[in-house]
Amino acid sequence: MSEETANSGEPVAEKDDARHAMKMAKKKTAREKIMATKTDEKGLIIVHTGKGKGKSTAGFGMIFRHIAHGMPCAVVQFIKGAWQTGERDLIEKHFGDLCQFYTLGEGFTWETQDRARDVAMAQRAWEKAKELIRDERNSMVLLDEVNIALRYDYIDVAEVVRFLKEEKPHMTHVVLTGRNAKEDLIEIADLVTEMELVKHPFRSGIKAQKGVEF
Amino acid sequence: MSEETANSGEPVAEKDDARHAMKMAKKKTAREKIMATKTDEKGLIIVHTGKGKGKSTAGFGMIFRHIAHGMPCAVVQFIKGAWQTGERDLIEKHFGDLCQFYTLGEGFTWETQDRARDVAMAQRAWEKAKELIRDERNSMVLLDEVNIALRYDYIDVAEVVRFLKEEKPHMTHVVLTGRNAKEDLIEIADLVTEMELVKHPFRSGIKAQKGVEF
Repeated sequence: MSEETANSGEPVAEKDDARHAMKMAKKKTAREKIMATKTDEKGLIIVHTGKGKGKSTAGFGMIFRHIAHGMPCAVVQFIKGAWQTGERDLIEKHFGDLCQFYTLGEGFTWETQDRARDVAMAQRAWEKAKELIRDERNSMVLLDEVNIALRYDYIDVAEVVRFLKEEKPHMTHVVLTGRNAKEDLIEIADLVTEMELVKHPFRSGIKAQKGVEF
Repeated sequence: MSEETANSGEPVAEKDDARHAMKMAKKKTAREKIMATKTDEKGLIIVHTGKGKGKSTAGFGMIFRHIAHGMPCAVVQFIKGAWQTGERDLIEKHFGDLCQFYTLGEGFTWETQDRARDVAMAQRAWEKAKELIRDERNSMVLLDEVNIALRYDYIDVAEVVRFLKEEKPHMTHVVLTGRNAKEDLIEIADLVTEMELVKHPFRSGIKAQKGVEF
């Protein structure tokens, strides 16, 4: 492949290449200098929130990274909803020895229509989450959609914050997903990403599709 | 589990439960009404951009969803960088029959220090991407970090936009990740998510960790 084709027909002058190389060399040095100061390792409290897509998906992506490295991990799904997700089948079928998977939430309240039951299910899920986090063999525990349970006060944010601060083993990563993450949780988190919706196909009449939304 | 424990000791009155149930029933009806208008299916152009984490991770999460459903898919990595990612090993080892995986990018220019070479590699990756997208057996093709190649003009955004509009099969999903997505690309995308960085542990001296960043 020639350089010409890569630049819409305009040849790249050697001078430009040299200038570019110098600029990039500076960038590399600056970057290495910064990276050299990053030496600590610790288990992170990671929050994915916002109205955009990808909060759970990126959480599962990290779980698959753990699986890829042979590191034991676990998932607790706080909200099951009406959709079946494929992740559970895939993980249980292929990687059940590395990743424990619990779906304990019952769905959104507007589906179950039963707050007392949702509260009980969320509490059960939180008990299981604590057990999995306390087990130091787990390198990462994903609490999928826990923010929804927190938002509706199915579980108490003060209790979650206290547990993560006081009882989470030092090297364990805990990932908490779902929109409307509570401020108290963001406060104690190490890594917070807000997935912002820029454009969504639902607006133009496209339905949820297999492999994308579920 | 009693309701009391779920609400920090405050008993939930039955009246509250009934009011809540009515509110949720309304929400359910409204939601079902909206969902009923979403009937179309089509292959989406999906963009994950922004400075936050999770762009590639959520892309791989969708690839794993495809794999979970037994739907053929493919990945082209435009930028390899210095880090080894575990996804490739995992996919090749377990799901090579469902998901093709190509790492054709060479790294960031500040690492290779060689623009001409980076351009040639990005072009090769783009040729492979086109081949995989044209192949209608693939239900999804992930172009991981392609936005970086577009940003540095290693590949021409006008050509990418033209190809996606004119040659992408109707039912094929294409996911394009990387920060600084070009406006022309966002313009034609169906689903755009901006991953926004709220908090990052690098700031407090924590280094990139196995299972989280790679």
